[in-house]
Amino acid sequence: MPEPKQDRAIRTRDEIIRAAAEVFDERGYNGASMREIMKRAGVTLGAVYFHFTNKEAIAREVMNGQPPTILPHLETGGLQQAVDITLAWSCKLQWDPLLRAGVRLAVEQSGLEFRDASSYTAWQAIFEECLLVAREKGELRDHVSPRDLAEFLVGACTGVQLYSDLLYRRADLPERTVKMWELLIPGIATERTAEQIKVSVRRASALAA
Amino acid sequence: MPEPKQDRAIRTRDEIIRAAAEVFDERGYNGASMREIMKRAGVTLGAVYFHFTNKEAIAREVMNGQPPTILPHLETGGLQQAVDITLAWSCKLQWDPLLRAGVRLAVEQSGLEFRDASSYTAWQAIFEECLLVAREKGELRDHVSPRDLAEFLVGACTGVQLYSDLLYRRADLPERTVKMWELLIPGIATERTAEQIKVSVRRASALAA
Repeated sequence: MPEPKQDRAIRTRDEIIRAAAEVFDERGYNGASMREIMKRAGVTLGAVYFHFTNKEAIAREVMNGQPPTILPHLETGGLQQAVDITLAWSCKLQWDPLLRAGVRLAVEQSGLEFRDASSYTAWQAIFEECLLVAREKGELRDHVSPRDLAEFLVGACTGVQLYSDLLYRRADLPERTVKMWELLIPGIATERTAEQIKVSVRRASALAA
Repeated sequence: MPEPKQDRAIRTRDEIIRAAAEVFDERGYNGASMREIMKRAGVTLGAVYFHFTNKEAIAREVMNGQPPTILPHLETGGLQQAVDITLAWSCKLQWDPLLRAGVRLAVEQSGLEFRDASSYTAWQAIFEECLLVAREKGELRDHVSPRDLAEFLVGACTGVQLYSDLLYRRADLPERTVKMWELLIPGIATERTAEQIKVSVRRASALAA
């Protein structure tokens, strides 16, 4: 049975995004061209423009593709879920083109014409949801605002990966992410929760597998 | 009495760095040219090349010029000094070209040919020094490693300013920096120190003045 037209269109679109992610990861926003994305995806330039009006539209899609590569694989809730998101991310960022390109584009924006904060605010909303559950479960200390902590986590993770990228090409990012939580948890979690939260490089590898 | 030759050379060098900082802040590394730096500094191209072999050499100098714009103005020690550095930085980053360019260059590097982590490691060493004093003064909880906390602070501050820049052009950076410490301090400082540490937007403005 031949593949239905709609399915094929979705598959082509996914292939373009995947190819674009690789090109953005390697060359950054300014260095990437629609032509190279087309070649990498193995489609026609017409197909690329059928799905996306311009390079900026693809870049936005790539940036917003980060959360779905991580979230469906997690089974925990509350503070442990916030921890697990960062752990999985710290490992996957070493090889997943969609995550790598998403981070590069998000960081590069400070120097670009187009500014789109949605990948930051999407992660912030995801962390906030975990932390609101954590609040309800009594996992957080009273002074901790889920919103403030969520915003801080997005900023801190962004910067920690930049530091790790520049010094060690991200090889130590899982370790740095673990250390971030070891510094944060005693101040933000109740004593009981602090004892129960699992955070280790081994857990990061397992979550990213 | 005419200005000695050496003084004039130092002054010219400073003017080139100052002008370069403005140009890097506005255009980024790739967008900046030696010619524009020369024009902005009001010197000849020969003078620029007398002091610096190429654009990369000026960029390095600009990046390494961050700490001296903040440190000499602080009078505290230990953990309070680490706090004060970030508070002064969070305000000055809104208008000081040397700091702004330094941060932009440091962040942009992930996409550039030249990679120089020295502005990260310089701040890390400065924080570590404050935190080693804090350790000696008994300000830190036992589980806190001055080295790990120093590295985390550099990463976290870098990312928090990126987030603030993208969403609010850094207008809320002092507030975000205060919130960072409010989340961190209960977990890293002894109870007594946590009560004594002063961290507020008002203090940030005063330190940057």
